[in-house]
Amino acid sequence: GKLWGGRFEESVTDAVERFSESVSFDKQLYKHDIMGSRAHASMLAQQGLMTISDRDTILKGLDEIEKKIEAGEFDWRADREDVHMNIEAALTDMIGEPAKKLHTARSRNDQVVTDLRLWCRDAIDGILARIRQLQVALVRLAVKNEGLIVPGYTHLQRAQPVLLQHLLLSYVEQLERDAGRFADCYVRLNFCPLGACALAGTGLPIDRFMTSSALGFTAPMRNSIDAVSDRDFVLEFLSANSIAAIHLSRLGEEWVLWASEEFGFLTPSDSVSTGSSIMPQKKNPDPMELVRGKSARVVGNLVTLLVLCKGLPQAYNRDLQEDKEPLFDSVKTIMGMLEVTSEFAQNITFNRERIQRALPAGHLDATTLADYLVKKGVPFRTSHDIVGRSVALCISKNCQLLELNLDELKGVSPEFEDDVYEFLGVENPIKKFCSYGSTGSDCVAEQLEMWVSKLGIDDDDDDDDQ
Amino acid sequence: GKLWGGRFEESVTDAVERFSESVSFDKQLYKHDIMGSRAHASMLAQQGLMTISDRDTILKGLDEIEKKIEAGEFDWRADREDVHMNIEAALTDMIGEPAKKLHTARSRNDQVVTDLRLWCRDAIDGILARIRQLQVALVRLAVKNEGLIVPGYTHLQRAQPVLLQHLLLSYVEQLERDAGRFADCYVRLNFCPLGACALAGTGLPIDRFMTSSALGFTAPMRNSIDAVSDRDFVLEFLSANSIAAIHLSRLGEEWVLWASEEFGFLTPSDSVSTGSSIMPQKKNPDPMELVRGKSARVVGNLVTLLVLCKGLPQAYNRDLQEDKEPLFDSVKTIMGMLEVTSEFAQNITFNRERIQRALPAGHLDATTLADYLVKKGVPFRTSHDIVGRSVALCISKNCQLLELNLDELKGVSPEFEDDVYEFLGVENPIKKFCSYGSTGSDCVAEQLEMWVSKLGIDDDDDDDDQ
Amino acid sequence: GKLWGGRFEESVTDAVERFSESVSFDKQLYKHDIMGSRAHASMLAQQGLMTISDRDTILKGLDEIEKKIEAGEFDWRADREDVHMNIEAALTDMIGEPAKKLHTARSRNDQVVTDLRLWCRDAIDGILARIRQLQVALVRLAVKNEGLIVPGYTHLQRAQPVLLQHLLLSYVEQLERDAGRFADCYVRLNFCPLGACALAGTGLPIDRFMTSSALGFTAPMRNSIDAVSDRDFVLEFLSANSIAAIHLSRLGEEWVLWASEEFGFLTPSDSVSTGSSIMPQKKNPDPMELVRGKSARVVGNLVTLLVLCKGLPQAYNRDLQEDKEPLFDSVKTIMGMLEVTSEFAQNITFNRERIQRALPAGHLDATTLADYLVKKGVPFRTSHDIVGRSVALCISKNCQLLELNLDELKGVSPEFEDDVYEFLGVENPIKKFCSYGSTGSDCVAEQLEMWVSKLGIDDDDDDDDQ
Amino acid sequence: GKLWGGRFEESVTDAVERFSESVSFDKQLYKHDIMGSRAHASMLAQQGLMTISDRDTILKGLDEIEKKIEAGEFDWRADREDVHMNIEAALTDMIGEPAKKLHTARSRNDQVVTDLRLWCRDAIDGILARIRQLQVALVRLAVKNEGLIVPGYTHLQRAQPVLLQHLLLSYVEQLERDAGRFADCYVRLNFCPLGACALAGTGLPIDRFMTSSALGFTAPMRNSIDAVSDRDFVLEFLSANSIAAIHLSRLGEEWVLWASEEFGFLTPSDSVSTGSSIMPQKKNPDPMELVRGKSARVVGNLVTLLVLCKGLPQAYNRDLQEDKEPLFDSVKTIMGMLEVTSEFAQNITFNRERIQRALPAGHLDATTLADYLVKKGVPFRTSHDIVGRSVALCISKNCQLLELNLDELKGVSPEFEDDVYEFLGVENPIKKFCSYGSTGSDCVAEQLEMWVSKLGIDDDDDDDDQ
Repeated sequence: GKLWGGRFEESVTDAVERFSESVSFDKQLYKHDIMGSRAHASMLAQQGLMTISDRDTILKGLDEIEKKIEAGEFDWRADREDVHMNIEAALTDMIGEPAKKLHTARSRNDQVVTDLRLWCRDAIDGILARIRQLQVALVRLAVKNEGLIVPGYTHLQRAQPVLLQHLLLSYVEQLERDAGRFADCYVRLNFCPLGACALAGTGLPIDRFMTSSALGFTAPMRNSIDAVSDRDFVLEFLSANSIAAIHLSRLGEEWVLWASEEFGFLTPSDSVSTGSSIMPQKKNPDPMELVRGKSARVVGNLVTLLVLCKGLPQAYNRDLQEDKEPLFDSVKTIMGMLEVTSEFAQNITFNRERIQRALPAGHLDATTLADYLVKKGVPFRTSHDIVGRSVALCISKNCQLLELNLDELKGVSPEFEDDVYEFLGVENPIKKFCSYGSTGSDCVAEQLEMWVSKLGIDDDDDDDDQ
Repeated sequence: GKLWGGRFEESVTDAVERFSESVSFDKQLYKHDIMGSRAHASMLAQQGLMTISDRDTILKGLDEIEKKIEAGEFDWRADREDVHMNIEAALTDMIGEPAKKLHTARSRNDQVVTDLRLWCRDAIDGILARIRQLQVALVRLAVKNEGLIVPGYTHLQRAQPVLLQHLLLSYVEQLERDAGRFADCYVRLNFCPLGACALAGTGLPIDRFMTSSALGFTAPMRNSIDAVSDRDFVLEFLSANSIAAIHLSRLGEEWVLWASEEFGFLTPSDSVSTGSSIMPQKKNPDPMELVRGKSARVVGNLVTLLVLCKGLPQAYNRDLQEDKEPLFDSVKTIMGMLEVTSEFAQNITFNRERIQRALPAGHLDATTLADYLVKKGVPFRTSHDIVGRSVALCISKNCQLLELNLDELKGVSPEFEDDVYEFLGVENPIKKFCSYGSTGSDCVAEQLEMWVSKLGIDDDDDDDDQ
Repeated sequence: GKLWGGRFEESVTDAVERFSESVSFDKQLYKHDIMGSRAHASMLAQQGLMTISDRDTILKGLDEIEKKIEAGEFDWRADREDVHMNIEAALTDMIGEPAKKLHTARSRNDQVVTDLRLWCRDAIDGILARIRQLQVALVRLAVKNEGLIVPGYTHLQRAQPVLLQHLLLSYVEQLERDAGRFADCYVRLNFCPLGACALAGTGLPIDRFMTSSALGFTAPMRNSIDAVSDRDFVLEFLSANSIAAIHLSRLGEEWVLWASEEFGFLTPSDSVSTGSSIMPQKKNPDPMELVRGKSARVVGNLVTLLVLCKGLPQAYNRDLQEDKEPLFDSVKTIMGMLEVTSEFAQNITFNRERIQRALPAGHLDATTLADYLVKKGVPFRTSHDIVGRSVALCISKNCQLLELNLDELKGVSPEFEDDVYEFLGVENPIKKFCSYGSTGSDCVAEQLEMWVSKLGIDDDDDDDDQ
Repeated sequence: GKLWGGRFEESVTDAVERFSESVSFDKQLYKHDIMGSRAHASMLAQQGLMTISDRDTILKGLDEIEKKIEAGEFDWRADREDVHMNIEAALTDMIGEPAKKLHTARSRNDQVVTDLRLWCRDAIDGILARIRQLQVALVRLAVKNEGLIVPGYTHLQRAQPVLLQHLLLSYVEQLERDAGRFADCYVRLNFCPLGACALAGTGLPIDRFMTSSALGFTAPMRNSIDAVSDRDFVLEFLSANSIAAIHLSRLGEEWVLWASEEFGFLTPSDSVSTGSSIMPQKKNPDPMELVRGKSARVVGNLVTLLVLCKGLPQAYNRDLQEDKEPLFDSVKTIMGMLEVTSEFAQNITFNRERIQRALPAGHLDATTLADYLVKKGVPFRTSHDIVGRSVALCISKNCQLLELNLDELKGVSPEFEDDVYEFLGVENPIKKFCSYGSTGSDCVAEQLEMWVSKLGIDDDDDDDDQ
């Protein structure tokens, strides 16, 4: 029977049991549930609420249960509702009476949220490691592709030439802020709810500082009602996941575009591509499509949690059981997205020749030309207008700015002089960029060096890798 | 190897395979996939694209595979990616050469969307049956609770007395519109994409009208690109699910409120309640909390699909693989929510005595009193003001309107006469309501009769049921 | 003072008034509010709840107020909270006593939802007209571009050749289903809540069938609680908006891609493009980026409504006031998206020459080649494999399938014969497609004709238009 | 004409202009736009890219424009698209030639995101001040209601007695974490994008550290592409808003419940209540319903931004223009929610007598009784069972635990002794709670003192306030 069955005369219907059970998914909290029970039992013993011998029996029993679970030999029972009751009941089956003392000064309300915070800590560690991994992969890709100039886009229209390295580092920057959000989330959630019991605390002489410290938390939470009722740490975690997922969806979009015949800027290796069941010639960049697509479920999971928590009164409501599946799915998804993006980054080749052939199109040097005029003292708005007319001339002649001769240029504006040709083309502009954070060769080299060092990338490693 | 491996030299990495596989969840399409293959093979044979003998071998093989799957003996393989490839490859393993002809004039692109539309049809049928079931449960609950007056609320403040039957029928009305949305969705999605192949159709002489008709579709879809690229039918289905879920969340909220000590209007039986691991006295209406909570994931799933589809170019993109899990989860959830709400409805008792005792509070007859004055010829705004002052008098005297004597009433307004007492209390007002659709006893009786008849509820059944 | 002020001693604080007022946005319901009041007054008079003379005074007053509003001379006052109270109070200021009778047997609860349903009807009509407009624009674009073959994509990889007309008609199909959803929504919402009053109906002898019919509703709603508490019609409307917006976002993405230098398939005219404040050469397809981007707010508005309604108990809650801004914004946005997409469609040129030059890339004929082998009796899986190897040969030789000579082809498979060249290239495949709904020239011509006729497109019009 | 018009021959259509303009909403960035222009002009002058005299003319012009805007005398023109172009063009109208130099080494891409980050900083400051205000209001409410015991709920079922102060402090804790999220967001967004120009930086010798420092940013952003293309700071800000809004929605729900007739725990003053247009007796806690309801749009706005950014390729896309309205609306809404909740908190009275009268119901002392048995050495699971049976006895006798005599208690378990009555009732349990963070009187007093001091609440102030 249920562990709360004292005053109940009927057991719940099958449909209700099926609808209500959570063990099918919350069993993945087992490691953290056992960790929490260990700390709790030790504290109870120290506080005299349990004998040393009972504690040892319990700790030994928990060890065995953990081993069984990891060996896949544990019998998870839906009629025991959740991971907590499954483990406690199995412990009772195994060691008898002492197990009945484990739930002293504890409720499932504080127990589940303790487990969940412990689980989130591990999940964040796992995500941070994968972010780091992807940053390393991107920086290595940058190192490998020194000097490669690609079109920079705004509105998906060619705008200005940029170094591929500069573009790759822009993703590294975004991932760094993502890492910052996860780290902040970790710090904020790392407080211990254990001992809040159902919602009000307890009259038994427990030591919450002891369990908090044993479990590696910063401190016990200061308010027992807050401890059991709030899930803002899950909301914050899922928000960080969503923002990171959106970043990855943008990278996914970009690489899918670049892998198209029309762009032709990159080719994924066979090991990260798939084919078609009907069209034999196809080679699809599926992993990055899925990265883009899976961002959707990460966002959906966040929305689920927000809708879930909206308008719930204090303190624990059963609705909150629904916090776990979206969280678990979101974490699994983001980890997969990060891993697969890393693998993809390690398995693409940029098509240097094709990119270079395509570069002249799009008047990427127009802005540099405007800067040239500004340097000559022409007000920017005037220079913008002059270059606009120069581009119009190119379009009518179907040529590039570089291909206009000086007379033609002077026909547009007398300010143009011989030295103008040092500012045209795609390589000249790259050399001219000099502002901090710009795509100028020196600026990018400096940033790249910073990241190589910050990420501890060893050049020898890198060589081995290739 | 993959079935599209012809031009590929390397196989995909493990991480990519794990990230990309869909068989772990799309295997639940097996029945519809086999159904589609049967229709397709028969058509190919009729059109001379396959021999009769090959067709028969294939049909027999498909039968066996279906049996195996249903017996739990089918070996689902992640390296075969998805349900389609698993079944086709297993068929090839089983019957050899003929199986290689099955994918003639078909692509996974049209195959998967055909499966999905077939699956949705069944899902909608299942949901409609459960909506009907819940409507029946609510109407029976209404039949059982004849004459019970409860407070009607606005702003969660007591407003006017209403018959419980009237309130229960308001849910029945909402469910009826939900059913309408599902039925419309069914009609709109019931067109056959099979034969659209990858996206362009085929040059082989297939007969799409034959497969469409064999599979019970209204007609083949008219445009092959549209057929493989759009998922608006999933979006519409998930929207209908979300709206229904929101309806149920509101009912959930209401019944959770009514089960509280403070309201005390209903008591769920033990068979639909749960207890607490720490507080022995607790009896929680968990199923309705979960109904309220699970509405969140239904909404989250809709958001996932909307985010997924946003900004995808034509035609099939791998992102679309992500359409299935949210759909499957949403359907499973809404079915569970409907079932459990039906069970709950069958297992609650309204606490007639307690409700009646509490009814006088809240001046529920104030509006009826205002109508009384209007009938006497007082303009409504004036009568509203008079009654407002009468209520203020009650509050200062801590009494009910019914308890004011005629002098006191006349002190507020000379319009009050002896007959005013026929309009006060909670039962008098119920008798006075007469507008169509109102909570007046006759109006409600008429509506109830309509629903009993429309839903085919047999009184004898009902007696048996009790 | 407020119209409900009878029992109140203090007025609300400024912050609360500012936070609570809705007139700043719900004033756009004025036309429907007045329409409802006219019908209500006429009914009250017919039922003897108001004199004919009062009715006439009221109707005349309402006319004047409507004129004032339309002339921009109406004084909207935040302290009068909402559109209903503003109009009623202005009427009272204008005509005195009779105005106080207008709110007889009516509450703001049924009044606002009546207004909102009337507003939604007009909004749906407006959207349906704009959908039709866009369909016409797309079909005309198709008519103009007869015979133009473009690459069909899956995974953004070139897949098979398709007629541009076929692609354009796929959008027309999607819009047609969108129109269906809006039409269904209209039918379902077109029931009259007026007379439900606060939530329970009324004891006054009103005739709800008369007001319902005067306002063009199908019938009065059957349950007064349902009438005032549910907003599922808004949810359904916003869902239809969201699905349509997602469709448009996909078209937006596609046209933005096609306008890029890399694709170069279409050029928007200056009248639907914008430039850059810094890069003089830029010409951006902004309207379609905004169409893609604005889909986000339509989705966000749907989420707002779903979150809003989740878990609200019966009947009217003040939360529901928040239903209007998302609805208004969503309708305005979708209308703008449809209009601007129509304009864009009328202002783009497909770059026939550039498309044709680029077409050979991507082995678009591979699937047709596989069909060729199937017609020769090769099982599809085998033919898929043969073509896969043929493509691999092309890649190694950097050529097209068409450029392989017969010996080379026979080297891959002896099944290839002289007639194979009728199936290669991009024009041959288009000729070969013959399945219903395919991109074959005849199939597309038939579909196009159907749409031209269904949409009533007059060729002469079209000529004029050009 | 547009400032980018050089190469354009036609102007955009009216529909496109209307659809594309942003000045109607982005004009609220004017202060930050002018701030940015001042810093930019000063830097240009220092770097020799502009004369001192031009700079002074520009600064003077900007001052005048700012004054005009603040006086409501500025002519915002939709044909000038956005706030940036409006101000620059007005400056050109006013001071002529020098104004044309202001946009040197700047693009709208870096300009708008600089403005937006500056705006967000102010917005966060405003929100933090309002969070503090609400915390103060809650703590003062706690101070005022010393010793008041209320039922603590789980599953909306009465669970254990808690001090109202403890409950109020649980909201203070949640708000403190909200404040932490906003503060983290501030730190992360406070980097300067100015000088990133269109996306690549510039070849002109600007000093980004100077502008960054002048504008109070921590440092210039390190990567120009990242600077213009990412909006993760808006996503993070809207996430923090959403989490805070969810917190407030829960408080809203709770206070709406508590204000109901059934709970009757609190009464709002007239100054934060509203009435009904039809039911004269109503007094609705509208502000808290709207707080609950408005949480929906904050969530919807977050979803809008997530959908917006999903799948956008580098760098600036016009879609990003859509980031502002959801941000502005979300900030305005959350500020209003915080303000109105503070006002509500200052205008409610807890109904001490009614709460106390209702307290005995619900067996709130059951858990304390279980702890009593644990203290006697009974294992918790056994004691839980014993108390469960004691409660069942109470239910059958329709009495409270306190009303069972010792014989009856001993009939359930011999462990009960005379001292058991020190643990029963609602006041005894409150005295017994002793764990850190519990609702025990001493624990709560300590926490309250901490908050009073941390928030700098002066008792004298408080007295004045009352």
